[in-house]
Amino acid sequence: MPQKIVQVCLTPDLTHLYDLKDCTVVVTDIFRATSCMVTGFAHNLAKIIPVATVEECKNSQDLGYIAAAERDAQKVPGFDLDNSPFSFMDTSLNGKSIAMTTTNGTFSIAKVKDQAKSVLIGAFLNLDTLARYLSKNSENVMILCAGWKGTPSLEDSLFAGALTDTLIKEYDFKNVDDSSLMTQRLYLQAQGDLKGYLMEASHLKRLKGLGIQKDIDFCLEREKYAVVPILEENTLILTK
Amino acid sequence: MPQKIVQVCLTPDLTHLYDLKDCTVVVTDIFRATSCMVTGFAHNLAKIIPVATVEECKNSQDLGYIAAAERDAQKVPGFDLDNSPFSFMDTSLNGKSIAMTTTNGTFSIAKVKDQAKSVLIGAFLNLDTLARYLSKNSENVMILCAGWKGTPSLEDSLFAGALTDTLIKEYDFKNVDDSSLMTQRLYLQAQGDLKGYLMEASHLKRLKGLGIQKDIDFCLEREKYAVVPILEENTLILTK
Repeated sequence: MPQKIVQVCLTPDLTHLYDLKDCTVVVTDIFRATSCMVTGFAHNLAKIIPVATVEECKNSQDLGYIAAAERDAQKVPGFDLDNSPFSFMDTSLNGKSIAMTTTNGTFSIAKVKDQAKSVLIGAFLNLDTLARYLSKNSENVMILCAGWKGTPSLEDSLFAGALTDTLIKEYDFKNVDDSSLMTQRLYLQAQGDLKGYLMEASHLKRLKGLGIQKDIDFCLEREKYAVVPILEENTLILTK
Repeated sequence: MPQKIVQVCLTPDLTHLYDLKDCTVVVTDIFRATSCMVTGFAHNLAKIIPVATVEECKNSQDLGYIAAAERDAQKVPGFDLDNSPFSFMDTSLNGKSIAMTTTNGTFSIAKVKDQAKSVLIGAFLNLDTLARYLSKNSENVMILCAGWKGTPSLEDSLFAGALTDTLIKEYDFKNVDDSSLMTQRLYLQAQGDLKGYLMEASHLKRLKGLGIQKDIDFCLEREKYAVVPILEENTLILTK
């Protein structure tokens, strides 16, 4: 059996370069969409319907869903939940389904969902469980970094590098393209002090300006939750 | 006066994200287009007409130009020059004008030439002269990495990081986006042994397969030539 490959796509604006037909895509948006999703499923949320636009999210809200909408790192007025992982721990969400739209994370899911063989949700919070789940399957993997409005983000790139580095024994990435190599090298440089390494990152500055230091610390915790969300018919559910 | 900024665009497929109106764009394609251009000008080439397609290059050849065409790292049959910097040292090129097309480098120039305030050519071979030239001007800078068919390349990213790191005192890059920060961090990790650091890079493997070890060593030499090529009316000439 030929070795599986892992590739990294640094932003959703580069997905056109990749053949996703037989590929498992791991979408990541560390600050904070996919960290929220993983946290929600770990706290017994039943389903998340990721939608690309605020309008779609409003429509879902009108249909009775709990709705979370974030733009430019802030909650959109009129919605039920913001984009903090702590909001996704609320016990009132037990067994519930929510609709969710974020600036970059849900946009990235929408960008690949019709092409990829499957779409999984990745964050530092579920990194090792996710790696074990991928190892059990035979598909090639693409890690899609949500970035910020089309540009690459350091925190998503570091997650991509960390996951690549974890998959290193079973996957080839050095003969594919350089994005996986670059993110792995960045991660190896950063791993001793992820938060310190991120201090200059543009999105961390954006978030610090909004006073959510606690979220940042939380989103960088590794393997806190043993869950792997997967997209099935446009809805995120827990893998078995 | 507000501080000038330097940004890095990791591939020509992301140029739509940047406002280039008042911006000096430095195009780099280390292996080997921009290294060839810098070498040619240092050896008294008069002009280079960069063209995006092999057809345009053929048309220029038919008009009497010396023509260099490369695709997939190899010379296109029927053209006069390949894409090795050593070919650009030929004394028969003294005072001559050549037309040139390459897979990524001339494509990148074509992508930005109508939007940017000016377009300069960068390589390790002219890095410090280029940095001094930029310092004398008041424009913001974008370093455009040519990459490989739309994906980022490690060698171009390392050049972007080296130039960013050289401009650090006069330019802001930490408040802009993360690509400049990422490339600078990669460069700081790599600078002690650029070639060793690049051993796993995809394009270096592609080139090694073609037996051009000598070109690779040459293209990584820093500040060998004190020249800065600039695009004027679709033609590269030497800045004064």
